Amino acid sequence: MKVKINGVGLYLPPKIQTSADLAPMIGRSAKWIHEKSGVKERRISELDVDIMGAIAGKDALNNKPPDLIINASGVPKQTIPDTSIFYQKEMGYEGIPSFSVHSTCLSFITALHTASSLIHSKTYKRILIISADRGTRGRNFKEPESSSLLGDGAAAVVLEATKPHNKNELIYYNMKTWPSGSALTEVRGGGTNKHPQDPDTNSADNLFSMDGPAVYKIARKQVSRMILETLNITGLDPKSIDWIVPHQASGKAIEAYRSAGIFDEDKVIDIVSEFGNCVAASLPMAFSIAVKEGRIKRGDLVLMIGTGAGLSVACSLIRY
Amino acid sequence: MKVKINGVGLYLPPKIQTSADLAPMIGRSAKWIHEKSGVKERRISELDVDIMGAIAGKDALNNKPPDLIINASGVPKQTIPDTSIFYQKEMGYEGIPSFSVHSTCLSFITALHTASSLIHSKTYKRILIISADRGTRGRNFKEPESSSLLGDGAAAVVLEATKPHNKNELIYYNMKTWPSGSALTEVRGGGTNKHPQDPDTNSADNLFSMDGPAVYKIARKQVSRMILETLNITGLDPKSIDWIVPHQASGKAIEAYRSAGIFDEDKVIDIVSEFGNCVAASLPMAFSIAVKEGRIKRGDLVLMIGTGAGLSVACSLIRY
Repeated sequence: MKVKINGVGLYLPPKIQTSADLAPMIGRSAKWIHEKSGVKERRISELDVDIMGAIAGKDALNNKPPDLIINASGVPKQTIPDTSIFYQKEMGYEGIPSFSVHSTCLSFITALHTASSLIHSKTYKRILIISADRGTRGRNFKEPESSSLLGDGAAAVVLEATKPHNKNELIYYNMKTWPSGSALTEVRGGGTNKHPQDPDTNSADNLFSMDGPAVYKIARKQVSRMILETLNITGLDPKSIDWIVPHQASGKAIEAYRSAGIFDEDKVIDIVSEFGNCVAASLPMAFSIAVKEGRIKRGDLVLMIGTGAGLSVACSLIRY
Repeated sequence: MKVKINGVGLYLPPKIQTSADLAPMIGRSAKWIHEKSGVKERRISELDVDIMGAIAGKDALNNKPPDLIINASGVPKQTIPDTSIFYQKEMGYEGIPSFSVHSTCLSFITALHTASSLIHSKTYKRILIISADRGTRGRNFKEPESSSLLGDGAAAVVLEATKPHNKNELIYYNMKTWPSGSALTEVRGGGTNKHPQDPDTNSADNLFSMDGPAVYKIARKQVSRMILETLNITGLDPKSIDWIVPHQASGKAIEAYRSAGIFDEDKVIDIVSEFGNCVAASLPMAFSIAVKEGRIKRGDLVLMIGTGAGLSVACSLIRY
C-alpha cells in the first residue's frame, strides 16, 4: 500500500527513575533489576496519557491538521470515551474523526496497518497515530520482574497517501493471536470481568501481571517463525532490511532479535535499557528516536515486529 | 468497497428486567422510566461479555472460521488483553489475528468500515466483527435517567469480499468527533485518569454517567446534518434508502429519526423499548434482528447511523 510516514513525534517524560531508585520498592538490588529486565532507568510521567500523547502528536503534525486521529495505546485514560477524544481535545481540534485500535503492546503495528488500509481505500489522506502509555501506573511491586520493566512515554506518526512513483510503502503485514496465552500477560480489572465495584476485585487485579519466562518461551519461537515467513513471502534477503524496530518488551527480548543470527546485531533498534517497556508506546518511541537521530533514513527498509498480550505476534515491513 | 455481510449473529440474554422491576432501585415509577427513556424492559446478562460475544460470533459464522476477529464493543472484559482474545478463546480458535476497535457506541460502525478497508486492501477475506456489552454492569442508580436506558446484549456480523458484479457494497462512510462534548458521556474510571488504585477514585467514577439532554441537543443537530450530507454526496433520494438502523440511544433518539421528515417512519428499526441501550451492541443487534426477521432483505440499501461518547457521530451506507 502506497503510504508514507511524514512526521514522527515524541514525548519523553523528564523524570528519571533509575534501577537503584526502584530497588528498595520491590525488595531487589539494582543489579538484579538490570540483569533480569535489562532496564537501567525508566521515565515516570507526571502528565496523564492524553497530555503526553497530544505533545507527541503536535510534534509529529508540524502544524498541519490530520483528517483522522487513531489512538494506539495499551491502557486507556478512562473507559469511556476512548483516548483519541482526549488527544484531540488537548491538541485543540474539533470535528476530526477519531477512534482507538487496541491490541495491547501491538496496538501501533495494528494501527499503522489499519491506517494504511484506510488511506488505500481513499477514506483519509493524513492520519495521526498516537501511542501514549504510563506503564508505571500499573506496576505491582509485589511482582518484581514485571515492575522492573515498565516505563512511561509517548510517540506519534503521521501517515499520508503518497504517489505511485514514490518508493514509500507498507510492503507486508502479518498478525497472529493464540488465546491459549491469554492469562500470561494481564490487567484483569478495569472492565466487566473484575469490575472496580465488585467486592472480590483486589488490588493485584488492577495492576499489571506477567509470566515473563512463559511469554518469552512462546514469543521467541513464534517471532522467529514470523520473521522467516516474512522473508519467504516477500522474497527479501535479510541483508536488504536496514532496521529492525522491535517492541521493547525486555532486555532479553531485544537480545533475542540480535542473537537470532538472521540480522546484523547493530540493525536492531534498542531503547529498552534507557526507557524500559512503555507498553504500546515502546515501538513507535524506538522508531521515532531512530528517525530523529538520523539513523533511519528515507528509503530504508524497516521491519517493525513484536509480541503483545493475547498472546499475539505481529510485524509490518515498510519502505520509509 | 465491494464487501458483503454474509452472516449475522445474536445473543439476547434470557433474563428480563422490566421498568417495574427497576423502578424501586432508582426511586422512580415505571411510568417515569418509560416516558424518560422509552425503555419498557432490558435484558440482564449473567454471562460475561466474552461468552455473550462468542455465542453471537458462532451464530454468525455458521461453522466456517474467519481470518480476522474484531471486537467492536463499548466496554472491555478487562484492561489487558483486549476482548477479541477472549472471544477467540471461547469460540475455540487458535492463531486467528484479533484486535479491538473502540469508539464507544459507534464501535460497530467504525469496525465495519475498518473491516471493509482491510478486505479492500486484500489483507483479509472473511472478518468476524463482534459487539458485546453489559450496560447494566455500569449503571449508577443515583443517576435515574441513564440507568433507565442501559441493557445487555451481543451481536456479530461476518464481512466477506465479494465479486465486482455483485451489488453488495459499502457505499459511503462518515465520522466526526467533537471533543468539546467529552464530558457529556463518561465512565471516568478504569484507566490512568481515575485509576482503580487511586484513593480519590469514587464509586460514581466507575459507573456510567450521561448528560442526556445536552447530548440529545447536539446529537439531533449533527445527525441531521450528517444525513443531509450523506444524501447530498451519494446523490441518493431518501426514498431509495430501505432501512435506517440507528444506534438505540434512547426512545427519544429513535423518535427523532422517525419524526425528522426525511425517511418514512416505518423504515426506522426500533428495538429500544424491548432491549434498552446496549452500548455498542445496540446497532448490530437491531440490524441482526431485522435481518433474522426477514425485514432487511438482500439488495436493500441500509443506513447505519448513530452517536457515541466523544461526542462523535458516524454513519455507514451499505447495499446488503
